[in-house]
Amino acid sequence: MSRTKVALLGAGFIADIHVESYHRFVPDAEIVAVFTRKADRAEAFAKKNYIDRWFSDLDQAIAESGCDVVDVCLPNFLHHRTVLTAARAGKHVIIEKPIALNLEEADEMIAACRGANRKLMYAEELCFAPKYERVRKLVNEGAVGKIFQMRQCEKHSGPHSDWFYDVDQSGGGALMDMGCHGIAWFRWMLGGQPKTLSVYAHMQGGLIHQGRTRGEVNSICIVEFESGAIGVAENSWAKQGGMDDRVEVYGDGGVVYADLFLGNSALTYSDKGYGYAMEKAGSTKGWTFTIFEEAFNQGYPQELKHFIECVREDKQPLVTGEDGRAVLEIMNAAYHSARTGQKVRLPFQSKVKRPIELWLG
Amino acid sequence: MSRTKVALLGAGFIADIHVESYHRFVPDAEIVAVFTRKADRAEAFAKKNYIDRWFSDLDQAIAESGCDVVDVCLPNFLHHRTVLTAARAGKHVIIEKPIALNLEEADEMIAACRGANRKLMYAEELCFAPKYERVRKLVNEGAVGKIFQMRQCEKHSGPHSDWFYDVDQSGGGALMDMGCHGIAWFRWMLGGQPKTLSVYAHMQGGLIHQGRTRGEVNSICIVEFESGAIGVAENSWAKQGGMDDRVEVYGDGGVVYADLFLGNSALTYSDKGYGYAMEKAGSTKGWTFTIFEEAFNQGYPQELKHFIECVREDKQPLVTGEDGRAVLEIMNAAYHSARTGQKVRLPFQSKVKRPIELWLG
Amino acid sequence: MSRTKVALLGAGFIADIHVESYHRFVPDAEIVAVFTRKADRAEAFAKKNYIDRWFSDLDQAIAESGCDVVDVCLPNFLHHRTVLTAARAGKHVIIEKPIALNLEEADEMIAACRGANRKLMYAEELCFAPKYERVRKLVNEGAVGKIFQMRQCEKHSGPHSDWFYDVDQSGGGALMDMGCHGIAWFRWMLGGQPKTLSVYAHMQGGLIHQGRTRGEVNSICIVEFESGAIGVAENSWAKQGGMDDRVEVYGDGGVVYADLFLGNSALTYSDKGYGYAMEKAGSTKGWTFTIFEEAFNQGYPQELKHFIECVREDKQPLVTGEDGRAVLEIMNAAYHSARTGQKVRLPFQSKVKRPIELWLG
Amino acid sequence: MSRTKVALLGAGFIADIHVESYHRFVPDAEIVAVFTRKADRAEAFAKKNYIDRWFSDLDQAIAESGCDVVDVCLPNFLHHRTVLTAARAGKHVIIEKPIALNLEEADEMIAACRGANRKLMYAEELCFAPKYERVRKLVNEGAVGKIFQMRQCEKHSGPHSDWFYDVDQSGGGALMDMGCHGIAWFRWMLGGQPKTLSVYAHMQGGLIHQGRTRGEVNSICIVEFESGAIGVAENSWAKQGGMDDRVEVYGDGGVVYADLFLGNSALTYSDKGYGYAMEKAGSTKGWTFTIFEEAFNQGYPQELKHFIECVREDKQPLVTGEDGRAVLEIMNAAYHSARTGQKVRLPFQSKVKRPIELWLG
Repeated sequence: MSRTKVALLGAGFIADIHVESYHRFVPDAEIVAVFTRKADRAEAFAKKNYIDRWFSDLDQAIAESGCDVVDVCLPNFLHHRTVLTAARAGKHVIIEKPIALNLEEADEMIAACRGANRKLMYAEELCFAPKYERVRKLVNEGAVGKIFQMRQCEKHSGPHSDWFYDVDQSGGGALMDMGCHGIAWFRWMLGGQPKTLSVYAHMQGGLIHQGRTRGEVNSICIVEFESGAIGVAENSWAKQGGMDDRVEVYGDGGVVYADLFLGNSALTYSDKGYGYAMEKAGSTKGWTFTIFEEAFNQGYPQELKHFIECVREDKQPLVTGEDGRAVLEIMNAAYHSARTGQKVRLPFQSKVKRPIELWLG
Repeated sequence: MSRTKVALLGAGFIADIHVESYHRFVPDAEIVAVFTRKADRAEAFAKKNYIDRWFSDLDQAIAESGCDVVDVCLPNFLHHRTVLTAARAGKHVIIEKPIALNLEEADEMIAACRGANRKLMYAEELCFAPKYERVRKLVNEGAVGKIFQMRQCEKHSGPHSDWFYDVDQSGGGALMDMGCHGIAWFRWMLGGQPKTLSVYAHMQGGLIHQGRTRGEVNSICIVEFESGAIGVAENSWAKQGGMDDRVEVYGDGGVVYADLFLGNSALTYSDKGYGYAMEKAGSTKGWTFTIFEEAFNQGYPQELKHFIECVREDKQPLVTGEDGRAVLEIMNAAYHSARTGQKVRLPFQSKVKRPIELWLG
Repeated sequence: MSRTKVALLGAGFIADIHVESYHRFVPDAEIVAVFTRKADRAEAFAKKNYIDRWFSDLDQAIAESGCDVVDVCLPNFLHHRTVLTAARAGKHVIIEKPIALNLEEADEMIAACRGANRKLMYAEELCFAPKYERVRKLVNEGAVGKIFQMRQCEKHSGPHSDWFYDVDQSGGGALMDMGCHGIAWFRWMLGGQPKTLSVYAHMQGGLIHQGRTRGEVNSICIVEFESGAIGVAENSWAKQGGMDDRVEVYGDGGVVYADLFLGNSALTYSDKGYGYAMEKAGSTKGWTFTIFEEAFNQGYPQELKHFIECVREDKQPLVTGEDGRAVLEIMNAAYHSARTGQKVRLPFQSKVKRPIELWLG
Repeated sequence: MSRTKVALLGAGFIADIHVESYHRFVPDAEIVAVFTRKADRAEAFAKKNYIDRWFSDLDQAIAESGCDVVDVCLPNFLHHRTVLTAARAGKHVIIEKPIALNLEEADEMIAACRGANRKLMYAEELCFAPKYERVRKLVNEGAVGKIFQMRQCEKHSGPHSDWFYDVDQSGGGALMDMGCHGIAWFRWMLGGQPKTLSVYAHMQGGLIHQGRTRGEVNSICIVEFESGAIGVAENSWAKQGGMDDRVEVYGDGGVVYADLFLGNSALTYSDKGYGYAMEKAGSTKGWTFTIFEEAFNQGYPQELKHFIECVREDKQPLVTGEDGRAVLEIMNAAYHSARTGQKVRLPFQSKVKRPIELWLG
């Protein structure tokens, strides 16, 4: 059986991680093409990564690459258009977070893929991160009893690319960029599709990115589920010292703490510094927490491998467009809450183009 | 100069810690008497701790013990009456948290001590815990820049004495019992008397103490200060595995994490178990985190030594009745928020007898 | 190109890990047969792991399974005979540690594979453990300057199978079983084939396995290399609380600490316990360190994948029979040192059948 | 009862720690004088620390300060002469490690104090460090069963004062300076006066102090006791990144790990840096481990308080000159072992002036 052909759409930070993941861990997939808007960057990316074809036109990349699958690693505002095009062209789709800028877009994307009988996987890697999956399994074994509180933090000093700071392109700041992980993970831990009752959020703008973005730079959300459990998502673009991704699970019979970066790292002291410690770590002089197998530990290879299997074996992905939509709905409610100072009940309908409008007004 | 005479009011868990602290670290103080309601317990406590006199009548203890100072380690509902009596008798007062059941009581207590020209110290030990004080000092040096978020957790599996579970005696549950620490510490970190803008809280009842208390068993509060900084206080009576007391401070120039229990402990594996690992640790078989100098690391001796110095040198305590009142006001607002699902703005007036009525209605 | 056919020789603890590793991470390999001495165990293992053929006769397994490669997961005393048979049959060989019972055997095994023009890989997984490889890379970048000391610990409460305790079958105790890892890793960190100057060892017998084995139950070795660097290998079958595998690297410009078990784990507290925390963890009630992706984090899949690549692409394995022999020579010298109380200089010639005879006399 | 009068002999790094310890934690003692060789430094030290008198003549300091006690914080080569003078003058003595340059000196010092009926305490602070004392207590409760191995590390990047590097003044390098702690602590853990069977040591010179000292810069010793337990002391002046002081205790029923610096610290990330993180930490930019109550956590106040109590209540100190002598004997044997490459049996007689001569020859 031949390998599944993937067109990689995007050539930024996350595309690099996907390439590494396919090459090292997903032998059944083959990246046949890459797209990015600048032709020379597309070519350079392709050559560096042994990809045969490159495109600077999105429609062509989808139509002419001969791909079975598109892997969407593009800025948020391009998600909707890309998925619609891909579905029409009969491609399966895996899409990076967040699913779209608004719920209407998400609904259309889901409908388009369903109508074309194509798979739409929402690429939430935390549902595949092996340490967190270990946590989930022991929770499912009853190790900590019934969950009453979870916490997930995802914090660093700000994204790689400028488009994130432009809320017209991104739809929001730190919550939109990173809070989607925590919210998706809470749902995952509670069985996949728990009923969400409400969300409360507090947001702070400016901070170290004053003048650079109108988006929230630091946020905290409390998501309340039908079981009574709450999930506390803390997200920041203002946290110095490298990436922080950690979880806490409190049950009536125990607790679990897990941490993907500091908690997996080698502890290094270097007088002179060295090449790389972890995502956004900054200087490597003095003490650093040196992470290894960064992509694997975050679940990217496992997630992509799962999707390729779903395509090849015609299975339903474990995390779907509907999950992406549910996360987006909760984020919408969170922005509204940050504006009103009130807990917002779900379901939450909203017609805004971009979630952050619900906060900024 | 002779030693300052202390009457210890109370003979429970916290009184034990105060006795150890005085005896080992406060040579200028002398415990001259102990009071607890049951005469035989009073006598036993006194004898065990080499205290000359014991009382089972509170008024007598204050009036006849010859003390300069009363140290109030009594259930919450007795705080008001005790401090008024002590002030009238011309005694200086140090009082365990929370200051009182309601703001009216607090105001009367503060007024009584002021009227009698006696000192009233609010015994918030986290303002003296040496590791947290180290954190505060480096923050004040500018190590992490301007604070935008703090977190303080204080969690265990529930209090020692039954009166805590009776909200008529305690005034509330996990927030009232433990949230006062985080809230006081946020204020302390922001200079002592920062203006508090608002508080939001979510509370859960029942859990592992179902049927035992009407109080909240798990709570999270977001306190917003005028600087824009927020403090997140997480408190639980449902957290298994022993005491958790930890802080995180996020500034625009760095972060600090500190932890009084796991973070100070020796890591032990014992096949057979041993005597004691830490507060509420449960079994000591298998892996445990063995804490040392538990009182010192939480700041009790330093707090008591400071108070005795204030009395002897006629100085103003660093943490006063007014601070206790400010914490209580924020907790009142938190209970109200937990009921309404809304962020509650400060100042917050309330006439309830007990804070928890604002939540339970 | 078809998959490389592997005959798995052995069906114990380590064979399980190899099967998991091949299945999940080495798509170019196919396990075509398994051998173990008891026919019913062979069949059960094969069926559980979807292996088509099973053998209870070693020679048949090698001759009739149609394999390209044999993967030797057998008790130490069978290594020599197995590799000679495999080489004669024209099979490539990957062999678990230690390479053999004595140097003469090792020499014959190396010669047999060389004579048959077959590859012989010494399966030292620590040379592939991703966290330790991360450490090696940063050391090679100069992060810690020139190494002057290393430490590697490998400790647990004793092996799974009874044959380990019988020194006639194993050749030695904790050093023979686990010290080979540290010694191989020191050599690897120093470039692969550093000249070894001397070794000193101290050994203890009995302890928790009193009456069960004549082998050493706890050992410490100091290996001195030509560069002046020393490696300290600490190994134990008497360490409670689960597997410990950790390294320290001291250079004149820095240090690195890394830990494969506690240092990668989720921290769990469970009232009731749960299924599995880590290798030899014992009870899972109370606090445990829950490891994830145990095989991956120890380097087994990476090691096996490397070997299959070497076979398919006709490359020299990074760790060879000669390395296994060098480690065995150092262990021999260590046993001699433990007897004499003297640092033993390398090269060290010895005619003993089993290393432990050099200690026991 | 008036306070016990202490003459502090020395004004270097350790004298600072003693002053802080007396002032904050030993109310029954009063530092009445300080001696250091340079008059202006003596005066400055005295004034900074509110000490009434200062001396630049050692004999005068002892004779004229009116002290009850001398606290010897002087370079090693002055220990013998100082203690003899003090004993003759009828002073009690507490002396920093190591007790003396050679066994003959130690014997004379012990005899002099005994002859004068004065106390001689050997100031091994690890016997008082509260975390390590917690470990000792749980070991004594049987928590880890019978000890078969201990490890103690004491490592940093080199001492403060130049005299340490001059082996004529110090008598040795990293082992002499820091190994005394581990060796004393092993004995302490085994009940105080266990019979020592043998010692083996490996030493390295040069490293980061090439050309600066002839002393060993890195060392490892294996001390074997009659019970069969071994203690592994690792000591370094070449370890970057700040002080390391940690212990491991392995028993047949469990293990304990404890760490005085990293293991007690707050974890800080600072963009700009701050004043002080821990002993010899170097830069405070980036990640640092911020220690608090450094003297208390190492046991200095507890040690000094104990000595003052012994003097006041005429009790035998828990750690005596004889213990200092025993440690010195083991260190002598270690230097001899490092030269010969052989395990050296105790008792070990030697007539060298300085231990390091046994290594350098």
